Amino acid sequence: MRQFVVCGHDAPTTPDFPLDDLPGAAGRLDLLCRCVNAGLFLSHGIREDARVHLVLGDEYTVRFDGETARGLHPDERSTAARVREALEQREDAIGHMPADVNPGVELYRMGLADTLDALSGTVVQLHEDGAAVADADPPTDPVFVLSDHSDFTDAEAELLADAADRRVRLGPDAIHADHAISVAHNYLDTDGYTDYGGPTN
Amino acid sequence: MRQFVVCGHDAPTTPDFPLDDLPGAAGRLDLLCRCVNAGLFLSHGIREDARVHLVLGDEYTVRFDGETARGLHPDERSTAARVREALEQREDAIGHMPADVNPGVELYRMGLADTLDALSGTVVQLHEDGAAVADADPPTDPVFVLSDHSDFTDAEAELLADAADRRVRLGPDAIHADHAISVAHNYLDTDGYTDYGGPTN
Repeated sequence: MRQFVVCGHDAPTTPDFPLDDLPGAAGRLDLLCRCVNAGLFLSHGIREDARVHLVLGDEYTVRFDGETARGLHPDERSTAARVREALEQREDAIGHMPADVNPGVELYRMGLADTLDALSGTVVQLHEDGAAVADADPPTDPVFVLSDHSDFTDAEAELLADAADRRVRLGPDAIHADHAISVAHNYLDTDGYTDYGGPTN
Repeated sequence: MRQFVVCGHDAPTTPDFPLDDLPGAAGRLDLLCRCVNAGLFLSHGIREDARVHLVLGDEYTVRFDGETARGLHPDERSTAARVREALEQREDAIGHMPADVNPGVELYRMGLADTLDALSGTVVQLHEDGAAVADADPPTDPVFVLSDHSDFTDAEAELLADAADRRVRLGPDAIHADHAISVAHNYLDTDGYTDYGGPTN
């Protein structure tokens, strides 16, 4: 299982946002939607072993599960519509019980700390001071934690200093969260393979 | 210089498409817009050594130049609006003379063959039968050629069989064109570097 947790600092926590202005009025929801796309989609297929968790304003988390999702499309607008549908049912998310929104889409009343607590796996923080990914052994059941267009807040950084099993750097330049997800998938897809025809041993 | 040429088989060649339905009425323009994003954007910056060429229906090509582009945003909708503005000026694109649309955005009346003819560099076809990228030396001034949600047409495949200097495979699974661009950038970003602090020799 590969999981990606993305902190959306300016993301909406109520459904009254327009689908026509995702970068502005919807607080860079465009970026978060691209993270869902990068996390779950293969060409003409879905990564069934992947989940993407969008943390909205440290208040709610929308979980997209590749194994059970149905009818997801890769474009930003339709994914944002799913987030909006999720937030419309926020009254049904109580404690750790999610609101069921659509097949494979659930809304939790949880911020980053509770979301990380609820996940099992190796928490990997993507960080500019981390080890180069090429030099690191691929983690088992990785939970990658990424930030949107803003840096992690001080509180998130403290939380991750405790929670993260590893800090990893993907390259010399800081890149967008969705691009980082594509690179992380490729790193895991190709590890241990040379000609991509099968395992090397 | 890194260049990415993306064939949009169902993409619009006139500006009368709605920004609210990029996957449908605009012929998967959402995917092409994400390719512009993946090709040009760094976190809080632009890759000045990169260009993305969107081939629209083998009739027009919109060129986005990272060095001269101004005011580009990463979301699909605003990028699609740039494509629409470009197509509004299609009468000004004559022969190999482009229509100047916005800083860093030009429209050419050229399909894939003419676009490839006009570019210099090492043409790299991303192909499932290609060599594993990890085993290949990074090309000089690569021109990556990708397809949208559809395979290359027979005519494009024949053209690329002649034009492509290399065929490269990024991983075991076929991935979306925009994800492939992110992976290709990372491959080039990290080549020859170990700790990303500087060249290894």
